[in-house]
Amino acid sequence: MRLIKRELMLPFCTVNNELISQKNEGEEMKSYLIEENTLPKNKAHHETLFSLGNGFVGFRGSFYEEASATEGCFINNFYETHPIKYGEKAYGFPEITESMVNIPTPRNITFILDGEKCILDEAHVKDYQRTLNLKTGVLSVVYTYMKEKKKLKVTSEALVSFHYENISVIKYTVTPLNFDGTVEIISSLNRRSKALVAKDDPRVADIEKPSFYVDEAILDNDTYGYRFKTFETKKSVLVLEEIKVNKGKLVGGEIYEKVKYNQHLTFDGRQGETIEVLKINEIYLDEKRKTFENLNFDFLKEKQTAYLEDFWKKSEVNLETNEDLTQGIRFNLFHLLQSVNKTGDFGIAAKGLTGEGYEGHNFWDTEIFIFPYFLFTQPEIAKNLLIYRYKTLEKSKARARILGYEKGVKFPWRSISGIECSGYFPAGTAQYHINADIAYAVAQYYEATGDDDFMRTYGNEILLETARFFIEVGHMQKGQFKIDCVTGPDEYTALVNNNYYTNKMVQANLKNAYKYLTKYKVKGVTIKELEAFKVAYENMYLPFNKKLKLTPQDDSFLDKELWDFENTPKEKYPLLLHYHPMKIYKHQVCKQADVCLADFLVGDDVPLEVKENNFNYYMKVTTHDSSLSYNTYGIMACAIDYLDEAYDLYTKNVRLDIDNSHNNSNHGIHTAAMGGSWLGLVFGFGGMRLIDGKLFFNPKFTKALGPYSFVIQYQGKVLKVSVNADTITYTLLKGNKVEFYNTITKVELTEKDPEFMV
Amino acid sequence: MRLIKRELMLPFCTVNNELISQKNEGEEMKSYLIEENTLPKNKAHHETLFSLGNGFVGFRGSFYEEASATEGCFINNFYETHPIKYGEKAYGFPEITESMVNIPTPRNITFILDGEKCILDEAHVKDYQRTLNLKTGVLSVVYTYMKEKKKLKVTSEALVSFHYENISVIKYTVTPLNFDGTVEIISSLNRRSKALVAKDDPRVADIEKPSFYVDEAILDNDTYGYRFKTFETKKSVLVLEEIKVNKGKLVGGEIYEKVKYNQHLTFDGRQGETIEVLKINEIYLDEKRKTFENLNFDFLKEKQTAYLEDFWKKSEVNLETNEDLTQGIRFNLFHLLQSVNKTGDFGIAAKGLTGEGYEGHNFWDTEIFIFPYFLFTQPEIAKNLLIYRYKTLEKSKARARILGYEKGVKFPWRSISGIECSGYFPAGTAQYHINADIAYAVAQYYEATGDDDFMRTYGNEILLETARFFIEVGHMQKGQFKIDCVTGPDEYTALVNNNYYTNKMVQANLKNAYKYLTKYKVKGVTIKELEAFKVAYENMYLPFNKKLKLTPQDDSFLDKELWDFENTPKEKYPLLLHYHPMKIYKHQVCKQADVCLADFLVGDDVPLEVKENNFNYYMKVTTHDSSLSYNTYGIMACAIDYLDEAYDLYTKNVRLDIDNSHNNSNHGIHTAAMGGSWLGLVFGFGGMRLIDGKLFFNPKFTKALGPYSFVIQYQGKVLKVSVNADTITYTLLKGNKVEFYNTITKVELTEKDPEFMV
Repeated sequence: MRLIKRELMLPFCTVNNELISQKNEGEEMKSYLIEENTLPKNKAHHETLFSLGNGFVGFRGSFYEEASATEGCFINNFYETHPIKYGEKAYGFPEITESMVNIPTPRNITFILDGEKCILDEAHVKDYQRTLNLKTGVLSVVYTYMKEKKKLKVTSEALVSFHYENISVIKYTVTPLNFDGTVEIISSLNRRSKALVAKDDPRVADIEKPSFYVDEAILDNDTYGYRFKTFETKKSVLVLEEIKVNKGKLVGGEIYEKVKYNQHLTFDGRQGETIEVLKINEIYLDEKRKTFENLNFDFLKEKQTAYLEDFWKKSEVNLETNEDLTQGIRFNLFHLLQSVNKTGDFGIAAKGLTGEGYEGHNFWDTEIFIFPYFLFTQPEIAKNLLIYRYKTLEKSKARARILGYEKGVKFPWRSISGIECSGYFPAGTAQYHINADIAYAVAQYYEATGDDDFMRTYGNEILLETARFFIEVGHMQKGQFKIDCVTGPDEYTALVNNNYYTNKMVQANLKNAYKYLTKYKVKGVTIKELEAFKVAYENMYLPFNKKLKLTPQDDSFLDKELWDFENTPKEKYPLLLHYHPMKIYKHQVCKQADVCLADFLVGDDVPLEVKENNFNYYMKVTTHDSSLSYNTYGIMACAIDYLDEAYDLYTKNVRLDIDNSHNNSNHGIHTAAMGGSWLGLVFGFGGMRLIDGKLFFNPKFTKALGPYSFVIQYQGKVLKVSVNADTITYTLLKGNKVEFYNTITKVELTEKDPEFMV
Repeated sequence: MRLIKRELMLPFCTVNNELISQKNEGEEMKSYLIEENTLPKNKAHHETLFSLGNGFVGFRGSFYEEASATEGCFINNFYETHPIKYGEKAYGFPEITESMVNIPTPRNITFILDGEKCILDEAHVKDYQRTLNLKTGVLSVVYTYMKEKKKLKVTSEALVSFHYENISVIKYTVTPLNFDGTVEIISSLNRRSKALVAKDDPRVADIEKPSFYVDEAILDNDTYGYRFKTFETKKSVLVLEEIKVNKGKLVGGEIYEKVKYNQHLTFDGRQGETIEVLKINEIYLDEKRKTFENLNFDFLKEKQTAYLEDFWKKSEVNLETNEDLTQGIRFNLFHLLQSVNKTGDFGIAAKGLTGEGYEGHNFWDTEIFIFPYFLFTQPEIAKNLLIYRYKTLEKSKARARILGYEKGVKFPWRSISGIECSGYFPAGTAQYHINADIAYAVAQYYEATGDDDFMRTYGNEILLETARFFIEVGHMQKGQFKIDCVTGPDEYTALVNNNYYTNKMVQANLKNAYKYLTKYKVKGVTIKELEAFKVAYENMYLPFNKKLKLTPQDDSFLDKELWDFENTPKEKYPLLLHYHPMKIYKHQVCKQADVCLADFLVGDDVPLEVKENNFNYYMKVTTHDSSLSYNTYGIMACAIDYLDEAYDLYTKNVRLDIDNSHNNSNHGIHTAAMGGSWLGLVFGFGGMRLIDGKLFFNPKFTKALGPYSFVIQYQGKVLKVSVNADTITYTLLKGNKVEFYNTITKVELTEKDPEFMV
């Protein structure tokens, strides 16, 4: 394996980037993330990147040997509530927030040489390398440890099992290279909890009180561990550890098969002979311990590899000549898999299970940026994400009542369990569009799967309740349906009237409600109610500037003063950390795509010329301070054939976390940007759209990106799309027949005739 | 003195009103507030009404004999800082708030009969009466105390000296009516501090940590007391007490002239013989104890009466046949005098020194609703209120920088020392109009006094810095100067573009800046800057709806949905306590006058027809949930000759605290509504306006109000205006000459010819 420093060849925002080395040639490099030679400088950033998880539990990629300031162990649905404080509280402000709890990480393991614990610094560590293998899911670390004249080779391989979600393991070895002598290995359940603190950053919670306590310490023959319990939510998590000695001679004893709570082992080390221990952690949330047999590393690795082989088959994506981006997308998809819970009980957090940023809350990010990836590769997971929303309907109804509406639901802007946890409503609760975003996902789900059962059991009710909410929120004025005082996706403009994105998405919401509730003859809905939906969507007010052939973001956006970009120095970005909201709100300046996102999602009836004008206008006033921004603009750049811009935006999107271009990847990964990196290829360059149940492609080729291919699932069929400079090839990989459109040409592939080339 | 239960004859909001009895005939009743026969049911409300203060210190009117849940002793400028917490903090949100400290009240005094402390309940107390005499400033309480067969007469007279601001006294007597026996009197400095708590009411602070500690306990021959110190602001207040025995025989001893810290006195009581003690409290803020000689009650009462005689001469106001309202206004003016500090170091708190509501903060209320009363009766006090603002210029400059502006000041929405303490910017900081309100007061001050020194030393700088701020906040669009994303006076509509009130007041601000900076040739201002002011005010955008001949409150107000008043039950008012801000903001619903306030203050160029349309339109959508609302609408009702409405609104304004019509007078008085009650008479029925240095009157008569008269000071002259059904009489009381207008007729009064009658 030849490992060479990666050269940055792309115009990334690399201010805070530390180079991550990788094999820079061949196919292999696309499935690895490698850090080598020197220890990482920005540890917190890399701890995020090297996080391991399985959707149930996630561990930040801190070194086992030393304490880290941003260490983390997170369990999906293990959260605590805390009161939200306000300078001046008003009616309906949420009173409590939910915060994912960072429990003490149980992954510590280190060695003692000559009475001194391992010290991870440049003086002691040579030939260092850390590798995340996306195909096996194994994180391995290798280094040579130098202490005076003694040399020790240290290796570890770790995985968090997708197959047995309660199990995570570390295989840890030390080999004396040039001496004989005592080597001690100690392992512990760390009881420290280091929480991320960033008092002045609204993207990080500022929680003062402890979240949990040790309810029980378990110390019996078989087991060593703790049960942690939260104070308010009364959730309990059981964390256990075992150590198996696989190789090496213990001083004064035989090889133990299993070591109990006194996890301090003294080995009689011999030059060239490897000492190997296996650390097994079991974690349970509100459930009893299970019994596992034969938990050895090779077995678990085999299971993990098989699981991922299946995953990569569904998520196949390749940019033939573009290793950086292929690595980037695959890394992102791997992290999405690590983040998403597969039970339908929870959403997917903005930072997955990799950090405390945004308190472990989920947002509209799920439906708009992450859901489509799952929908078109693993629709079962997508369905579960919507079932999670369905399960929060009651809480969302209660919230709608508090907001002053008699019917319908208002989904929370940010939440874990479904209650609204947003402490700043102008850029939170006011984003009523989240209702329409979820409804949009429901309709897309149905169109992509034809899953009638889902609609009957879950989907229709979501469509109905969201539509009911908007009927009350909006009002007819001079024959048009208007929606006042909301915030669109762009959080640099708040509490406006007739945000185009919102109105357009609500229109789709009402239309889909009408369509599906009629289709399924849903009970409990009156004809009068359905007619009201119809009148509203047919008369939806959609701002449009005829003179400029441009879509105003809202009623007043175009009348505002332009932001003075010329006199805004680099260090003043993101604006939200350097300017008062009022200063921002009164200007034409966008944090992220707003009109252009509507043009992407529901823009099928918008002329290309208008889309182009919108792109040109809003790109100029957008800071991309939101990690969700590049993605949308990139997709729209593809749609209007601005392929250079598209490529530039796309690269910024794909490697956002790897390159830490938003300078907050230390808070955790950006799951939405990660989902967006798949959308950027498939909906962007691939030009895919699902409109009224019809699937369209309009692939674009650009030299910079090079040839690319991806696989999607649609109506239970698997289709591969391959694009190069000259041809576009569609191949039916699974299923007897599939229909779709290449631009406007209808294509039908069958088992017998599975390929179509343009 | 015949005392008769007051009959409610007016359509007051009397939900929570307890009747306050009073002499209901003759002139005398107008200067008293009397409560009698039964003890008050809503104690907290009456504690507010019977508060005593002198602008330096204020005591809530709790009974000396028992502890009260809302006891309070407040000292102007004795405040502590506390961190402001936010659910999600953004850049520029204030980090600390200032809170007026409620120190333990030193006014406790009671008696013990047969080993039992006085119990204030219906069983023990008969013939109860409490009287606040507005002419002497004395609060007296009289009752007969019944214990088994023993009867005791108890009286007290208390005052807080205007003359010696450190001194407050209680003369306390007990007289055995039908027995001989021991009577004990105990007096104490109460160390309890009972803070007002109302977690879900944004109008009351929610502070958790203690504000002060006892720094020193003073116990020497002469003195008994405490020094309290705040933790953060390091302010110290010294509270002392002395007891003098004036009458009565102490058991086993002579009459003491002065009693020390052991304030427990046992008297040998004799039937019909009065025991009298004088309790003297001295309070000092960050200063040394002064020496006073001959502090006896009669002497202090004499001084107090003289002080108030002078005060009432300046503040003379009389509604000949309307005792209720005369009492109401006089009560209000008395409380304003008790609330206002006379040094120019502090503003006037929203609740004066009578309660913890709004944390002791001052607001724009000062300049718009209170300042004019002082300006036209005691201009020295008015000047000091502006000097206080001047002293906060540096803090307001710093705040403007944080808000993103390079020049100018932004005065705090709420504050004690001048720092912004507003924890909810949409209804706080966003009210940029406060700058223009202060500038307006500066110009009015000059026009009413001709005080060039003031302008040179203070006024011009305020005009300049406020104007500078607005030049940056606004922007030219299509040749018009626009101001986006602000909140006007109506807090039920937030963050709008081109709020008419704001634009109109800013126009005046810029115009006055241009005028006075030019007139005084102020240094440090460039011609370019002045020209920019001129261009902005000449091209100020002022929304107007030609079709309706109506002034829109802002760019989008008239497009919003009308609030559903029909389906809003009574108990849902005030809306702010029952509806989420977003629900409120998206409707046409006003908390208080907004456009109509502009019509009052700067409406001289607005046609009467438009004013009438505005009044009719906005009255329908206004809830008057703000105590500032009735006043303005009442004044405009006078201007458009809607005299029945005017009278109705006026009565609601005048007796707002006495009748507790807003149901929160327990938090303290409403100083702005109190100031408004004077404006309502003088600017409302009297039709007074000061425009470009010219004084106008346009008195209206209505039977319900009856004949009325008031006195004003103008350009150092004192003028009395008397209005009855047939005539209006102007009388020059002081000064050699005065010029003004009766409607459009110019009138000149001189010493020789001091009267003019129409």
